[in-house]
Amino acid sequence: MNVLWIFAHPEGRSLNAALRDEGLKALDEFGHAHRMSDLYAMKWNPVVGYDDFAHDPGKRMLVATASQEAYESGRLSADVLAEQEKLAWADAVVLQFPMWWYGMPAILKGWFDRVLVKGLGYGITADDGTVLRYGDGKLTGKRAMVVTTIGARESGIGPRGIHGELTDLLFPLHHGTFWYTGIEPLPPFAVLGADRLDEAGFTAAVGGLRDRLRTLSTAEPIPFRHQNRGDYDENLVLRRDLAPGRSDLAIHQRD
Amino acid sequence: MNVLWIFAHPEGRSLNAALRDEGLKALDEFGHAHRMSDLYAMKWNPVVGYDDFAHDPGKRMLVATASQEAYESGRLSADVLAEQEKLAWADAVVLQFPMWWYGMPAILKGWFDRVLVKGLGYGITADDGTVLRYGDGKLTGKRAMVVTTIGARESGIGPRGIHGELTDLLFPLHHGTFWYTGIEPLPPFAVLGADRLDEAGFTAAVGGLRDRLRTLSTAEPIPFRHQNRGDYDENLVLRRDLAPGRSDLAIHQRD
Repeated sequence: MNVLWIFAHPEGRSLNAALRDEGLKALDEFGHAHRMSDLYAMKWNPVVGYDDFAHDPGKRMLVATASQEAYESGRLSADVLAEQEKLAWADAVVLQFPMWWYGMPAILKGWFDRVLVKGLGYGITADDGTVLRYGDGKLTGKRAMVVTTIGARESGIGPRGIHGELTDLLFPLHHGTFWYTGIEPLPPFAVLGADRLDEAGFTAAVGGLRDRLRTLSTAEPIPFRHQNRGDYDENLVLRRDLAPGRSDLAIHQRD
Repeated sequence: MNVLWIFAHPEGRSLNAALRDEGLKALDEFGHAHRMSDLYAMKWNPVVGYDDFAHDPGKRMLVATASQEAYESGRLSADVLAEQEKLAWADAVVLQFPMWWYGMPAILKGWFDRVLVKGLGYGITADDGTVLRYGDGKLTGKRAMVVTTIGARESGIGPRGIHGELTDLLFPLHHGTFWYTGIEPLPPFAVLGADRLDEAGFTAAVGGLRDRLRTLSTAEPIPFRHQNRGDYDENLVLRRDLAPGRSDLAIHQRD
């Protein structure tokens, strides 16, 4: 497989960087090709702006419209085009970041904001007018896995832990971003208690990461429901007979 | 009250900018003082880096440690200090942004990444060693309200809507950021179907926003549980007799 590894940590001598290096070694071993977007090293600009779309600042900009026009006419800025090209090449994306305020660092959030423009990531309709998203889209066929480090200890981030459950915290990314565009998200790989990891903890983390990379092409994705296969009604509300009476985020997964 | 309005939209002629202007007018009318952080206009840098902490790039940087040292020794960069000063001044924060990929634009996520350093936003302990977070912290006594525009229509973003429920989507911000630092989050104000709002829709949105700003100082916050009032056990797991059998994110709210 072709793997795009997106890395978002400011420090090249960090736990995250060490895990990344071990991960890339493992991908080599398992026979996968890989490319890297090391966002800090690239000095990636995460801020959507007029320059992305060669948009005249004197004229009002509607972000969605401007992004689609620039995408379709080949006027997107070079740095965005380069990332779209890497994404097109990739069969799988590994997204590695330290959890900051229970989400991605800004530099990484801005990768999605800028790269997944209208016409590529959203705003896609079939010939019959069906909106293609949540499972169907231009990026269908790809898979993605989050690799993250979290300061919190394990019990605090579980199903009834004070910080919330990890797949709930990542729902906007897994479901609202990857799945929205057609990319199948795999269960995330998280290193807990990351700011006080000892040597044994690091060895265990590397082993865990290697195991997950070994099955990168075969692991079962999080079984999110498709928008267009009858599970949701015409108002995009889940059918009453599915996960009846519930309203937690897991209702959007198939049983 | 003193209100800090944080605004994160690239276009000064947008729906968001028009709502902001109406919101500021309303704050004047209701007798509140206000200051503005217009992140795009300020060319706010959202990326945490060595410069934030006057950290020698030749030396390994642990972000938490570096941020705390810089905070305590007064070496934080001037732009971060200016935002911390505004936050200290404020009794309430209004956080206005268009929802992009079910979260904040990168420029806004980076406001939290950079401003809420260790020692101010996290890593705070009482004299007896108790960790102060989730309701208790240096920012306790302040309140915050999200004002957001969303392309999705209303039914799709409700409790069983395909996009997820809004307070679940915002849990990392409301609970994992505001409440973590002690700030009480109010229920969010959202304008749905924002990319196809007509004149009547805009008038309704302004009316709704004005109503919410009218009660900014009195509205009931989202009733999140405190970490240190007995609801969670020593592993930070919710007590079994509270919201028994459930594991959705709403269990972290008091009944």
